[in-house]
Amino acid sequence: MRESMASRGLDCLLVSSRENLRYLFGFTGSNGCAVLTQDEAVFMTDPRYDEQSRSEVVGCEVCVTTTALWGLAASRLGTCGVRTAGFEAEAMTVATLSALESHAKGKAPDIVLVPVQQLVETVRAVKDEYEIAAISSASRLVDGAIEHARSIAQVGMTERALAWEIERWLREHGSGPMPFPPIVASGPHCAHPHATPCDIEFCCGDPVLIDIGAVVDGYCSDLSRTLFVGEPNGTIAGVYATVLAAQHAAMSGIRSGMNAVDADALAREVVRDSGYGEAFGHGLGHGVGLAIHERPTVSSLSKDVLVDGMVFTIEPGIYLPGVGGVRIEDTVVLRGSEVQTLTRSEKRNPVCTTC
Amino acid sequence: MRESMASRGLDCLLVSSRENLRYLFGFTGSNGCAVLTQDEAVFMTDPRYDEQSRSEVVGCEVCVTTTALWGLAASRLGTCGVRTAGFEAEAMTVATLSALESHAKGKAPDIVLVPVQQLVETVRAVKDEYEIAAISSASRLVDGAIEHARSIAQVGMTERALAWEIERWLREHGSGPMPFPPIVASGPHCAHPHATPCDIEFCCGDPVLIDIGAVVDGYCSDLSRTLFVGEPNGTIAGVYATVLAAQHAAMSGIRSGMNAVDADALAREVVRDSGYGEAFGHGLGHGVGLAIHERPTVSSLSKDVLVDGMVFTIEPGIYLPGVGGVRIEDTVVLRGSEVQTLTRSEKRNPVCTTC
Repeated sequence: MRESMASRGLDCLLVSSRENLRYLFGFTGSNGCAVLTQDEAVFMTDPRYDEQSRSEVVGCEVCVTTTALWGLAASRLGTCGVRTAGFEAEAMTVATLSALESHAKGKAPDIVLVPVQQLVETVRAVKDEYEIAAISSASRLVDGAIEHARSIAQVGMTERALAWEIERWLREHGSGPMPFPPIVASGPHCAHPHATPCDIEFCCGDPVLIDIGAVVDGYCSDLSRTLFVGEPNGTIAGVYATVLAAQHAAMSGIRSGMNAVDADALAREVVRDSGYGEAFGHGLGHGVGLAIHERPTVSSLSKDVLVDGMVFTIEPGIYLPGVGGVRIEDTVVLRGSEVQTLTRSEKRNPVCTTC
Repeated sequence: MRESMASRGLDCLLVSSRENLRYLFGFTGSNGCAVLTQDEAVFMTDPRYDEQSRSEVVGCEVCVTTTALWGLAASRLGTCGVRTAGFEAEAMTVATLSALESHAKGKAPDIVLVPVQQLVETVRAVKDEYEIAAISSASRLVDGAIEHARSIAQVGMTERALAWEIERWLREHGSGPMPFPPIVASGPHCAHPHATPCDIEFCCGDPVLIDIGAVVDGYCSDLSRTLFVGEPNGTIAGVYATVLAAQHAAMSGIRSGMNAVDADALAREVVRDSGYGEAFGHGLGHGVGLAIHERPTVSSLSKDVLVDGMVFTIEPGIYLPGVGGVRIEDTVVLRGSEVQTLTRSEKRNPVCTTC
């Protein structure tokens, strides 16, 4: 982090994003900030987190204040001997910056506040073994939840009922609160990539699109499977085969050093060659870690480069309004220049029941 | 809203807070913004929410864009004939404002962007009958969950197990995802107002502090009860009686037109007269609505005035490090100048089991 700060000409970074505070300092509460310089690190929070911050935050000074957090931060900026302090422009609201500036006027009059973006996030994109192990554990959970879903999904069940069964299974098997509400969509409803589970009942031959995440030690996993309750019709079976082939093309073709835009193209070409190019309306994937969506971005617009240690999703999809949709998504890690899957649920045989 | 804008000299308000978008336009998705002037209202979102926004957002124009949302917002600001546009400084990040300003430079060069705070929030503080009915429904759910907790809490059960039982009960009886993770703390752990449920087992005579919320139609309820698994010792029984008396003093004394600071004092005096003044370290309550914490603020620092139609919590607490703690909280509405409770769980007999 300190090298990264120096390379951008920053003496100091004021950290306030919740995920970044957890990543750099281990703090899991909801309110805090930290002043990081080349020589020191000070973590600040309010009295609700007194005991918790002292047990979680190691290797740096902890200050608990009953007065305004940004007043204390401004005081530290004024006394720690720095001139240029970056702040996280994507995490800080305009109102908070205004409060910080007011405090700084009196307490750190010479400080120059500089908005920075994606500084900690870029470091976070490459995971260490501890992080990969946590994401693997969270991946075991979503694998288990899909196995559970396969065993209970049947004609007449509603999207809402299955979504809750999955969430309950995940929580009762060790996941933290869901990183996003489980998506369960069936039949034509699958054409909405972001569908909210409702009271639609599964009909014979329907695709049932399931997109879920779990959390272990703060780290997320992300998995989508499209199951069929009974044999699908020819159109949707063909769509499924195309999406699976597209995912395989990306899985087997991605290498360390590849531009994310080229990784996206590996899958997109397969979909386009099948005539469904227009129906794949989102990017191929996204980084997964402390946040469910983080760097790298794997899309046709991305400027990221994929390197070993990055954990991300590979999730092509085809959505046909009025007909249905298929998405197949795995969380993977790039290692030894190859893609290794962390989620491993069955996907060659998506038909989970007869009718 | 338009009167409120005019009174602050704003021709236009750019709405981006998620709760405010739901309140003013009915939109329940995660990404959108709106331009509200005296003559028109335009809601904007991305293609993921195309169908959803067209069914949810009524009485105003809906635009779906595949390009940058803030670019579209800047275009509308440039063409809708306004000069002074407020933006929500507590909801907008510095990075988003910077993007908006860049777009505005080309598309709305004459616009003056003004940071505003608590504009929609002040209007939201007074609820109508539809909102009160939704909060009442959410209150029935937390009442039921506490009844369930009373029936199963016993010596040897862990905080974590009871917290999950409560969450599961709420979800299976109609609540949306929790507005905050349920708090269950027992014994000395109750001295932490913000305790995270852990594997501590309930011991005979322990206080078990439960703080939970539910959501119906987007509206929250908030309730705390302190139960006892077996008869409590004299100290904690006395603390319970004090907190209950403090809550009663506030419940029976609050009137429409009262300063929130005076409402807070009604309960605080009872606690202070019992010698526990220092142990009541938070405000008396907070507004409840689309957000679990909103206006009015009921504390010794508040500048709010309580009026009919406001929904808020009354939640005195006493926390004794190393010993335990008690909090009793209800969600109430101010009506006909009196406090009416929306949550109604038993609180005169907190002992829920023998041991």
